Amino acid sequence: MKLGFIGLGKMGKPMALNLLKAGHELAVYNRSTQVVAELAAAGASAASSAAEVGKRAEVVFLCLPVGKDVKEIVAGEDGLLTTLKPGSLIIDHSTISPADSREIFAKCQEFGIGFLDAPISGGVVGAEKGTLSIMVGGAKADFDRAMPLFEILGEDITYLGDSGSGEVMKLINNLLVGITNAALAEAFVLAAKSGLDPKQVLAVLEKATGDSAMLRRNLPNFILKQDYSPAFTLDMLNKDMGLAEEYAMAQGVRLLLGSLAHQIGREAAYSGYGAEDMAAVVKVLEDLAGVKIVSAE
Amino acid sequence: MKLGFIGLGKMGKPMALNLLKAGHELAVYNRSTQVVAELAAAGASAASSAAEVGKRAEVVFLCLPVGKDVKEIVAGEDGLLTTLKPGSLIIDHSTISPADSREIFAKCQEFGIGFLDAPISGGVVGAEKGTLSIMVGGAKADFDRAMPLFEILGEDITYLGDSGSGEVMKLINNLLVGITNAALAEAFVLAAKSGLDPKQVLAVLEKATGDSAMLRRNLPNFILKQDYSPAFTLDMLNKDMGLAEEYAMAQGVRLLLGSLAHQIGREAAYSGYGAEDMAAVVKVLEDLAGVKIVSAE
Repeated sequence: MKLGFIGLGKMGKPMALNLLKAGHELAVYNRSTQVVAELAAAGASAASSAAEVGKRAEVVFLCLPVGKDVKEIVAGEDGLLTTLKPGSLIIDHSTISPADSREIFAKCQEFGIGFLDAPISGGVVGAEKGTLSIMVGGAKADFDRAMPLFEILGEDITYLGDSGSGEVMKLINNLLVGITNAALAEAFVLAAKSGLDPKQVLAVLEKATGDSAMLRRNLPNFILKQDYSPAFTLDMLNKDMGLAEEYAMAQGVRLLLGSLAHQIGREAAYSGYGAEDMAAVVKVLEDLAGVKIVSAE
Repeated sequence: MKLGFIGLGKMGKPMALNLLKAGHELAVYNRSTQVVAELAAAGASAASSAAEVGKRAEVVFLCLPVGKDVKEIVAGEDGLLTTLKPGSLIIDHSTISPADSREIFAKCQEFGIGFLDAPISGGVVGAEKGTLSIMVGGAKADFDRAMPLFEILGEDITYLGDSGSGEVMKLINNLLVGITNAALAEAFVLAAKSGLDPKQVLAVLEKATGDSAMLRRNLPNFILKQDYSPAFTLDMLNKDMGLAEEYAMAQGVRLLLGSLAHQIGREAAYSGYGAEDMAAVVKVLEDLAGVKIVSAE
């Protein structure tokens, strides 16, 4: 199939490579051009604008940082809607606000073009292995025709409903991620200050009601190593927590913990940890309590 | 071995039965006497006071609601210390403050009697099946001699260090439980208000970074059934969250999320849900948002 991919960042690049490996034609565009050259070397055709991608593709994937970028790439002056034929499909893997996503969906509809919001979870490793979780909103018929393509990129693929539903699902997941991320900091600083061995605490919690995916992510990979090289930056988490707050407020749902966890995340970013992994929220609390979470071993 | 058991509540009763089944002699005492008669029918010897249990046993298990009860049963007028021989051991499965636990440990030491804090996790089902997690603090030699007895009651048995360490570990687990319990309420009310199917949201989260033991506990067993028959009451959780806050303050560790989750739990108790399962915190938020978390199916 003739595909396009726009936004070849940490996640987008390995996803685009998987589409190529599956035997599809792929036109690619990215603001920074070095990665475009890499993809071209792997068999993709380089494009110099979104419009050019739209000329060559029936289905275009997006993986962009923020909603403004998605609007620009889709509906901007040199955007996809200037060249994509009616009946084409845009699949947006970006995490953006449900309201922005619905606005872009409606704009595409005017042009007879399908638009699916399809945010992803599973990190760079999941993107490379093609094992992402994909949360999809939009027209069911568009989801059905995109399914063979989603299966190249991911494993757990869920259709959640109307346009924006995929983004809502993603924000709900990241809301829990943000709260648990900050909660683990409180728990492990308390453990360390009490003289407990954090490796033992981890082992006990893994088998108890305090267990979570975030526990198994943050402790062995970041906190116990005291290494916060980012898999998912605190700045990205803060962005998503902000979107969740804004969305919940529009829905009339009170997010007390979500709001506080967002403030805690911002505090850590103000302290200079925004570009580190989200697990680095723990550093502020370590400093305040005058303790480091290190194992006795 | 000659054992004693004091505090035959929801957890204590099945634990005492397991000790009997393992072939030990067991003297039992409980404030309400009906359960004592049940245990006697199963082969235990009924005692009419803690002191009487102390006369007949070398190792005495406690499973009591609050620290005041443990102090009274151990060091009160008719307490264990009036009759237990030097070299005996008290194993306290209650969840109480680490400070109370250390105070009782020191008191026992004066009498040449060992005291282990050994709070448990795993619920009534774990107590019945003998699969509890047991978090132990106190003298290592006492832990070692108690190990064959712990193995009758539980599966994951961890020695965490000096007196009080078991209680600290338990409070850290329940701190995470309390925060996640309230966080799930925010996440699922937001999902319901957005028109997402909560069963689908559960299925997606179970495979994503938002997964947790509390998600797998609260959603299928309580929230999706809209049935809050208690496995662990909100009042009990609030008690433990209060202990965690008090302890963290004494340690100089800031618990922002823990403190807020405690307030959210109290709010739900003030609204009349204290005797229901802790998952009932969600009801306050359902009412505020004017939505029920029900599946489309």
